[in-house]
Amino acid sequence: MKLFGQLLERIIDRVNVNLRSLGFDVRPYVRVMAEYRYGGCSFACYGLSTYHPIHLQFDNSSLSGSYFLGRCKVRHSVLMRSDIRGDELKKKGQIWEIDDIRIPLYHDEIITIRNSFLDTTLVHSNSHSPESPEEFPIRNTVAMPYANIHGAPIEGSFIGTFGTVDLTCVHNCVIGHFAYVLAGEVRAESFPPGTILLRSGGAWEFRYTYDPAVLDRYIRHEEGEAPEGLFIDFAEPYEDAFAGLFASARQGVYPAGAGSFVSRYAVKRGETSIANNVLVAQRAYLENAILHTGSNAQEKCYIIDSVLGPRCVAAHGAKIVGTHLEEHIFVGFNCFLHGTAKAPLTIGRDCIVMPHTIIDLEEPVHVPANRLVWGIIRRAADLEENSIDLDELATGSGDVRMGRMTFRGDAAGFVRGFRDRIDHILQENGAFWDGHDEVSKGHSQNMKYLTFNIIQPYADGDAEGLYPTIDIRPIG
Amino acid sequence: MKLFGQLLERIIDRVNVNLRSLGFDVRPYVRVMAEYRYGGCSFACYGLSTYHPIHLQFDNSSLSGSYFLGRCKVRHSVLMRSDIRGDELKKKGQIWEIDDIRIPLYHDEIITIRNSFLDTTLVHSNSHSPESPEEFPIRNTVAMPYANIHGAPIEGSFIGTFGTVDLTCVHNCVIGHFAYVLAGEVRAESFPPGTILLRSGGAWEFRYTYDPAVLDRYIRHEEGEAPEGLFIDFAEPYEDAFAGLFASARQGVYPAGAGSFVSRYAVKRGETSIANNVLVAQRAYLENAILHTGSNAQEKCYIIDSVLGPRCVAAHGAKIVGTHLEEHIFVGFNCFLHGTAKAPLTIGRDCIVMPHTIIDLEEPVHVPANRLVWGIIRRAADLEENSIDLDELATGSGDVRMGRMTFRGDAAGFVRGFRDRIDHILQENGAFWDGHDEVSKGHSQNMKYLTFNIIQPYADGDAEGLYPTIDIRPIG
Repeated sequence: MKLFGQLLERIIDRVNVNLRSLGFDVRPYVRVMAEYRYGGCSFACYGLSTYHPIHLQFDNSSLSGSYFLGRCKVRHSVLMRSDIRGDELKKKGQIWEIDDIRIPLYHDEIITIRNSFLDTTLVHSNSHSPESPEEFPIRNTVAMPYANIHGAPIEGSFIGTFGTVDLTCVHNCVIGHFAYVLAGEVRAESFPPGTILLRSGGAWEFRYTYDPAVLDRYIRHEEGEAPEGLFIDFAEPYEDAFAGLFASARQGVYPAGAGSFVSRYAVKRGETSIANNVLVAQRAYLENAILHTGSNAQEKCYIIDSVLGPRCVAAHGAKIVGTHLEEHIFVGFNCFLHGTAKAPLTIGRDCIVMPHTIIDLEEPVHVPANRLVWGIIRRAADLEENSIDLDELATGSGDVRMGRMTFRGDAAGFVRGFRDRIDHILQENGAFWDGHDEVSKGHSQNMKYLTFNIIQPYADGDAEGLYPTIDIRPIG
Repeated sequence: MKLFGQLLERIIDRVNVNLRSLGFDVRPYVRVMAEYRYGGCSFACYGLSTYHPIHLQFDNSSLSGSYFLGRCKVRHSVLMRSDIRGDELKKKGQIWEIDDIRIPLYHDEIITIRNSFLDTTLVHSNSHSPESPEEFPIRNTVAMPYANIHGAPIEGSFIGTFGTVDLTCVHNCVIGHFAYVLAGEVRAESFPPGTILLRSGGAWEFRYTYDPAVLDRYIRHEEGEAPEGLFIDFAEPYEDAFAGLFASARQGVYPAGAGSFVSRYAVKRGETSIANNVLVAQRAYLENAILHTGSNAQEKCYIIDSVLGPRCVAAHGAKIVGTHLEEHIFVGFNCFLHGTAKAPLTIGRDCIVMPHTIIDLEEPVHVPANRLVWGIIRRAADLEENSIDLDELATGSGDVRMGRMTFRGDAAGFVRGFRDRIDHILQENGAFWDGHDEVSKGHSQNMKYLTFNIIQPYADGDAEGLYPTIDIRPIG
């Protein structure tokens, strides 16, 4: 373990020097999580497919329990139970449009992870930085459990437990636990735990901040401790169901409709049924889950005793329990929707449940169709301050303030943008495939010929816990 | 499969051009075996350990069902169900002595396989060529099922089913099925099926040739057909027990004595017990097998309803059924020892069963201690023409002719050399480990910290059946 210890120190130093202006020390977080996870699942896995150009380079790194797809370099880094999913990286020859700039791409895009520590973190989408269109860098960064780095190049930063950075370039920031940031670009800023911020340049801004007393009940993370709270109590017991899944490379066969992909590294239990064009990603947990056509369950989703109607999106880390989603509903990153037999949750069609929303019911709740939902909801009455009709929001004028939420700016643009993004997600996932043409194919269809590969670290000696130097490229 | 087909053609052409002077065409053999195996186990596996410096390079190759350990480059080749075991390769800094030459090694030795087709073939030991001490090359070569390439650099050659080349440099040769060649160096020669040849320069020569009518019963291989005969009928049904084993990288735990290693890719069934310092290699099959201290069962061994007394060696491909080996007995490559409940076989201590010996009993047979055994034995009376007391052989003078066996030259040197080799094998396997010191450790002890890694080919498209380009090296 000598080299592993040295590597941790190196990462800590590299990240801390970036965060010194914020006076933040990642050491106690990294130390405790490294110790907590060490000796757990040692297997890492990568997918191979002709649909996802492969280039993997692993150098002086620990990758245990992690999953890789597509193009990714990892150097001097520790990845534990993380998913690096490069199936939406931009491709050579493509013209990439962002903010009215058209950038022709000379290379296939690649995710590059350096001097970083990622614990149970999802990395997905592609670089949304026009300054770095062919590279999706993650440098000198520490991410705590259940973090999402989604289309967000990041450097010199810390992301707390259940934190998400989404389509944002992040430099030298501290993202508090359960904070969500979608803001184009952020620099040298500290986002307190439970901050939900969506900002589109000067056009609009959505902001919600959890009451710290409420948040503590669900998730808290003290320096030098492992994270605690209901989210952890909920998620960690299921880890046993995943433990060892990565030990096998055998192709899974789970009954599902045409055009669907159910990862063999997802857990499927109870009376679970899967219709057409459904994507169930690795590390999703399904128990008594009914997924209708075009729905999807992404990494670290838990769908339990629930129904996802047609074309529902359960974004990365969404937990959906005792819930009926009617149709075309978006449930954002790390949402916690928790109904019970006595207090079930139903959500009407076309609703958008904002990322990091908590619906944890004490009584039955029905969310009417076409609403934007955020914050924390425990009773039907909470909907008043924590939801709004999407058309009402879009057609209204002036800023909106409801409870702890404020919205400023172009609401119509915000709603239109969100709707477009949901349809884009459905498209990427292949929800609309007609069973024939190539154009409407997405992840659900293209994963069909994925084969799995399993790699392990050294089991003793100085390099214990580290992987050898590995380079994997297409046949050339 | 387009690229796979092109690769096969390339290999066929490269090998045929080497064998044109012998008028041998490998095409019908390669074609039929490639078709026969294709679509079987797709998983390949490599071991990682600090005791075996790793360097693996795979380029434009198919590796399905194969196992790798140590340092090996594979280029433009098809390996099916083969074992490339680089745990006896020479190491940098070592002084290697051969034929009174002392060669200091500047690099770790590496196995290099190019333009070759190996079906269910074992590659082990190290290069015994003083011209190429740091490289163990296998070039432009076709090996049929159950072949052994043991310490034998080989180029431009064909090895038939159950053929073995042992500690011999082989250039442009055809080794017939079930032929065994240990001869220093052979060039542009054709060895008929069932030829057993051991030759040490001008010092001595052991030669036995199977009666073709007898051999046909056990193994025959017509051009354009899969091999047939009792050996195939015996071995192939067990393949089901191995199928899919390579799908999992999980560490196996099988009860065994101190200092023993039982590969998780061996099959262990029935009342099998394993004492101390025992090595059971991957792809060994044990059923109701009792292995006493210091014994070993190598790749493609089948030990069924049998006892291996202390320090018995079951060399690669030895099949031992209904047999009791008393102590310190060597059973050579691809031997077929087949007793039954009504016709059991017992072999006395210190016997040497020559490679490729067939003992297939119709009545109980006891081989007395200290005998050299060869050829085919079905009844006790057959021992007369197919065995000799080792001391009698060693102290006798003049050539020996017994049945189809001839021995010429220095018998004492031959016996001494063989005995030394057996002790060397036991040492390499760690049979003599005292439980403490490092010096007497061998494979059985050093495999302890081996971790397994599983790789797969593309599952569709032009590259279907081929692996991506892979390079794996130590952390550096």
